[in-house]
Parts: sequence; structure tokens; C-alpha cells
Amino acid sequence: MNKKAFQDSYPEELSHCYGCGKNNSDGHQLKSFWQHLDKQNLLASTTVAHHTPSDIYTAIPGFVYGGMIASLVDCHGTGSASAMAYLAQNRDMGSLPALRFVTGALNVSYLAPTPQGVELELIGRFSEIKERKIIVDITLSANDIICAKGQVIAVLMPDSMIR
Amino acid sequence: MNKKAFQDSYPEELSHCYGCGKNNSDGHQLKSFWQHLDKQNLLASTTVAHHTPSDIYTAIPGFVYGGMIASLVDCHGTGSASAMAYLAQNRDMGSLPALRFVTGALNVSYLAPTPQGVELELIGRFSEIKERKIIVDITLSANDIICAKGQVIAVLMPDSMIR
Repeated sequence: MNKKAFQDSYPEELSHCYGCGKNNSDGHQLKSFWQHLDKQNLLASTTVAHHTPSDIYTAIPGFVYGGMIASLVDCHGTGSASAMAYLAQNRDMGSLPALRFVTGALNVSYLAPTPQGVELELIGRFSEIKERKIIVDITLSANDIICAKGQVIAVLMPDSMIR
Repeated sequence: MNKKAFQDSYPEELSHCYGCGKNNSDGHQLKSFWQHLDKQNLLASTTVAHHTPSDIYTAIPGFVYGGMIASLVDCHGTGSASAMAYLAQNRDMGSLPALRFVTGALNVSYLAPTPQGVELELIGRFSEIKERKIIVDITLSANDIICAKGQVIAVLMPDSMIR
């Protein structure tokens, strides 16, 4: 299993995202990995990311703000979609041409307040895998309690966004 | 029409949100206002907010990252819900007991890349107004082009979140 984060395989010019770009020193630098990889049954594969938000990302004192949670779900979703696209094409992640995904739609349900100072775990599952569209369903947990569920409809990045 | 931002009427202890709290010096400090206020037909009222994201909130160079957009939609939604709750009860915003709303669910559709360096405009419309649940539909525009649409299902903050 590859221990390099999905986001660390993005092309340099596409690694500036505040949520997950390794070239954005101000941002969250989320790192996503395969949790379970099943090349025979792609839909059975799962992804994982861990992140402890900085205390500045407060909702009310003691709890993580919703925008941070949405951001983590978003970036774990697009990262998982990219990794899945490479897997589906049986290509090494990061090989050219790049398969980078952007978010078409993001849905997040906030089920419980998310505590601060705790490592959050995001698990990604796939409900649809097409060449240009991949749907990732994500849970976000703290202390093994699911605090949020999300869905990312990820679409292959249009050429117009790549300078 | 009251020129004080909704968020500036939140109680001090509920003003630490990274997205919109006046007491969070690191955050976005989003400010929302009434655009159109109709006490006879609450559903015809609309809200507005303007914000130019810092350049650190990059998706890829030149474009705002999705988590920022989700955050703005989220905070404009909960702020609008709070203001509407006071309006519906014919109470001054900020009067006690506080009517502060949290996000039950957040949906964002990304329709076009959102350019950086441009003032973004958020417009909120109401599709459901109940005592404990208010639904706000939001557009986010740059240069008069709608870049994202979102919906916030806002619920009255549970006592368990108020310390």
C-alpha cells in the first residue's frame, strides 16, 4: 500500500489549496490515504484522513466551526476521487496527464457538535465511479463518534481552471 | 433599517466563530445585513453580505477554495436565520434570550470557479421559517456572476452548546 498522501501526488501547480495543498503554508494540508484498497471491487475501497484542527477554527469555544468541517470533507472527497480515478485506470497516482478533481456539489449534515483538541477521522466511501464524475460519501468522527456526514460530487477538473 | 451586522448582535460568548465572530481576530468576520425587510411577508425578506477573501484561501492560483465558499454560505445562512427568528418574534436583534442558530445541514453547488481578488456578494432568501428551524437559500456571486448556490438548514442552538 502506498504511504504517500494523495495530495502529495498532485502536480506542483495544483498544490496550493488552503484545505489540502502542500504548497499552502497557511492552510490545513490535509493528507488522505487508502484505508482499504480493492482493485477487483473498486466500490469496496475506502479512504482515510486524520486531522486535528487548530484552535482558531472555533464555532463557539470548545467546538470546531462548520466551515472547517465542510473544508475537510471537501478536500478528502476530491482527494479520494483523484486517487480512485487513477486506480480505475490502473495508473500510478501522480502520473501524467493529471487526474485532479474539483467539487461540483458538497453536502454536509452536522449530526453532533465536533469537539476541539481532538484528532478527527474522515472515512471516504465511493457510491459512484465514472471517468469524469466520482461521488464520495464521507463520515467525520471524533472519539469514534460520527459528528458529521458528507457527500462530495467530484468532477474532473476542467482545462479552464488549469493555467 | 438597522445598519448593525447580524453577527455584531450575537452575545459575546457566541461571537468566536472563525467564519463570522467579531471576537475571532484570525477569522473572516463575515457581516450580514437585511437587503430587503418585509415584516408583513417574512418570506419576501432577503439578506446580503459582502466579503473579499484573503488570497491565502486559494483553490488553485486565481480561484477561491471551496471550503471558504462553504464557510461564507454557512455563516451567512445561520446569521440570516438568527435575524429572521428575531423578526418573526418582533424582537430586537440581540435581545435576550439569544436566538442563535447552528447548521443542521449545508449544501453547496459550485457552478463556476470563484475568482480571487473580487468582492463576493451573498444573497439570502428564506424558504422555510419555523420557531426552531429556518431554511436559507443563498447565492454567491462575483462580478454579478453566480459562482455557487447553497442552502443552509439552520436550527436553534441547543442549550448543550452554550456553556
